[in-house]
Amino acid sequence: MSETKALASYIVSSRFEDLPPDVIDEAKRALLNFVGCAIGGSREPAVDKAIQALQPFSGEPTARLLARPERFDPLFASVINGISGHVYEYDDTTPMNYIHPTPPVASALFAFASANPTSGREFLHAFVMGFEAESRVGNAVYPAHYNAGWHITATAGVFGAAAAVGKLLRLSTQEMIWALGLAATQASGLREMFGSMAKSFHAGHAARNGYLSAVLAKSGFTAGEHAIEGPRGFAAVQASEYDLSKVTAGLGEDFQIRYNTYKPYPCGIVVHPTIDGCIDLYREYHPAPESIRGVRVRVAPLVLDLCNKRDIKQGLDSKYSIYHSAAVGLVRGKAGLKEYTDAAANDPLIQRVRERVTAVSDRSITEDQSDVQVELENGQILHRFVECSLGNLRRPLSDAQLEEKFREQAPVPQVDRVIDLCWRLDELQDVGELTKATNAGKF
Amino acid sequence: MSETKALASYIVSSRFEDLPPDVIDEAKRALLNFVGCAIGGSREPAVDKAIQALQPFSGEPTARLLARPERFDPLFASVINGISGHVYEYDDTTPMNYIHPTPPVASALFAFASANPTSGREFLHAFVMGFEAESRVGNAVYPAHYNAGWHITATAGVFGAAAAVGKLLRLSTQEMIWALGLAATQASGLREMFGSMAKSFHAGHAARNGYLSAVLAKSGFTAGEHAIEGPRGFAAVQASEYDLSKVTAGLGEDFQIRYNTYKPYPCGIVVHPTIDGCIDLYREYHPAPESIRGVRVRVAPLVLDLCNKRDIKQGLDSKYSIYHSAAVGLVRGKAGLKEYTDAAANDPLIQRVRERVTAVSDRSITEDQSDVQVELENGQILHRFVECSLGNLRRPLSDAQLEEKFREQAPVPQVDRVIDLCWRLDELQDVGELTKATNAGKF
Repeated sequence: MSETKALASYIVSSRFEDLPPDVIDEAKRALLNFVGCAIGGSREPAVDKAIQALQPFSGEPTARLLARPERFDPLFASVINGISGHVYEYDDTTPMNYIHPTPPVASALFAFASANPTSGREFLHAFVMGFEAESRVGNAVYPAHYNAGWHITATAGVFGAAAAVGKLLRLSTQEMIWALGLAATQASGLREMFGSMAKSFHAGHAARNGYLSAVLAKSGFTAGEHAIEGPRGFAAVQASEYDLSKVTAGLGEDFQIRYNTYKPYPCGIVVHPTIDGCIDLYREYHPAPESIRGVRVRVAPLVLDLCNKRDIKQGLDSKYSIYHSAAVGLVRGKAGLKEYTDAAANDPLIQRVRERVTAVSDRSITEDQSDVQVELENGQILHRFVECSLGNLRRPLSDAQLEEKFREQAPVPQVDRVIDLCWRLDELQDVGELTKATNAGKF
Repeated sequence: MSETKALASYIVSSRFEDLPPDVIDEAKRALLNFVGCAIGGSREPAVDKAIQALQPFSGEPTARLLARPERFDPLFASVINGISGHVYEYDDTTPMNYIHPTPPVASALFAFASANPTSGREFLHAFVMGFEAESRVGNAVYPAHYNAGWHITATAGVFGAAAAVGKLLRLSTQEMIWALGLAATQASGLREMFGSMAKSFHAGHAARNGYLSAVLAKSGFTAGEHAIEGPRGFAAVQASEYDLSKVTAGLGEDFQIRYNTYKPYPCGIVVHPTIDGCIDLYREYHPAPESIRGVRVRVAPLVLDLCNKRDIKQGLDSKYSIYHSAAVGLVRGKAGLKEYTDAAANDPLIQRVRERVTAVSDRSITEDQSDVQVELENGQILHRFVECSLGNLRRPLSDAQLEEKFREQAPVPQVDRVIDLCWRLDELQDVGELTKATNAGKF
């Protein structure tokens, strides 16, 4: 059986009862994290501008947005949810493929569920199916696909959204094959957009196009049936090397959501080990920013490929800067939302240290590691080698830490109810209740 | 100046008065051809199914469709127009890059103009700008991009739609750079979809996403500013080899629309020389289908890459079959719309000959040429070598032949008014009149 057909068949035939309890728990953690990010990100200018641009084109406003009062049709609601959920760079990551897996899938699902009554169990099940589809397609083409310059969150994400919405639309296997085909042929998103609003648009674009793929397929709109494995299909066209066996190996047993991680810092995940090292040094030595003569970090090559931004003027740029991230760790001893604002980007103390940071690409350093060396004006050398940073698969954020992160993004009392609804998602009769709760009162 | 900026600046600063008369004439020919194709294609099941699927999501129905009575918002109208205009495989082609250039650009423009009063001159100007953008981006990455499996009509088309709608929205250069960036990051479309409805969706998808890119950019939604030439931009990511000089060389003088061609047969353009040869043999010898023992065609390698479909059950498949195309030429002496229907695909006489066709890939044969050899049961050999087929840049369809093709697709009296409006496009106060006319009376 072809990979596309095998994946489609699995998604169509899977039952909620087939999901192990730890998978359901992890799905709730992922969704809690996502909702927090969407609340936080919903106040960003990228969201305002997209709403302003898209509102004149919205269909019947049957859907609610996460944490925004405007109403849209479910396709555009998917776009806006995606921008909100991804713009903070605070969303989840599966390090085995560097996908931010939840925004494309959950953005479409929350839009769907706000317009069509959906139980928590159906929702969680569809979410896990979407997570599987995007992760497995991503695994098959990673790393060649990502290294070529594709934003894999977008290109794999569209498969996830199609699978998830297709599950809720109860597509047949034939329709699911078409939905995956329509998703494949809409898979796009360039890393050249990093640092601009277009990056967060990618998550919404993937969510919306996946949703649309499922809707078209449900109407009998046909697509090529070998979208993943065909000679002109997704893998062959968008990756110089790929392994199709990863699409199906262990399907239904080896759930990909078990490899998900949550960021403690709202910036490119590859700089997190460096931040950890800098925060550690801050805590131990409290070096005055004026006393820092130089900072030298040795990191895995991918870090400089992704986060080499030097000319920092805005908060959005600073999220992709190893220099800025090292500086905030050393100057403030933390790297929270306030460390990646326009104000922080232009803070003279942070600027001063940032300009003194050099980063060296070193193949002997893994993507989990970082080697940080700080030289003070008095000649003293501070050193920290980080083996793996907080939030790593081996040092996962606890439920309590996830809640703390949520509250940082939504610092108001009514947040308790939203957090509670997330933890009780599998008991909800109607997930629309949760979307509504993100709009109750001002965040 | 970077290629993206140079292209954006040119589009923004170009004036209608800068367009040479032959360019305006060719734009009218391209649009006449497109409107005819959209009328013809508007009755296809792919259009019905897309309308059914998308209607529940449509925004305020301010736009009209070409040749369909339903109303949509302009973004979805772009999608439907694109499907209608491309589904017949009868649209135009620029052989230097194998783009079908008019559908992605004109689908968006007709949708825009049906909702926003637009003069014929503004419309033609925007169309030529869109044509330049998509052709030049396509030229830069062709052939590596196409050979890898990208449907270049979709991937280059989105740039064209963004440029064209952006011109009508009077974007600044900065906004046009963002629009091209948002287009680049939505560029998608896999050749694996050929033979399914998803192929014609590509033209609509490109039109809609280009339109959306211009609308987002107008609202200040930002994108990476080196979308074409950046290290993770369109060219580097989507082509193993490319020549960026083609984006800007001769801009404003060497208009790409001069290289446009129009198909006399509604199928893959690469089989046209073979059809010409078969029709020639039919006219000279009138061989009875039962008398044909074998047919051997030698063609350029790309022909078998694109049109090697053997197992023909539907009209849509038959458009990508060198075997079917040779057979209809020999059996019917023509290759019009009726030769690519489900009925023709299952016609026993055509089937009989189709099964006897073999095709050989030969590097010494150019894409303009074909060598056709027919062996009869009595041992007689019929032979024709085609140097270049009707519709080729060196044998262009005349205005009268374009009108004849139009009437084949819209065989009713009121077509005269639509044809007349196309030829007078530069005089129209409101292009919406033309879209309306395609809906006056039943086609």
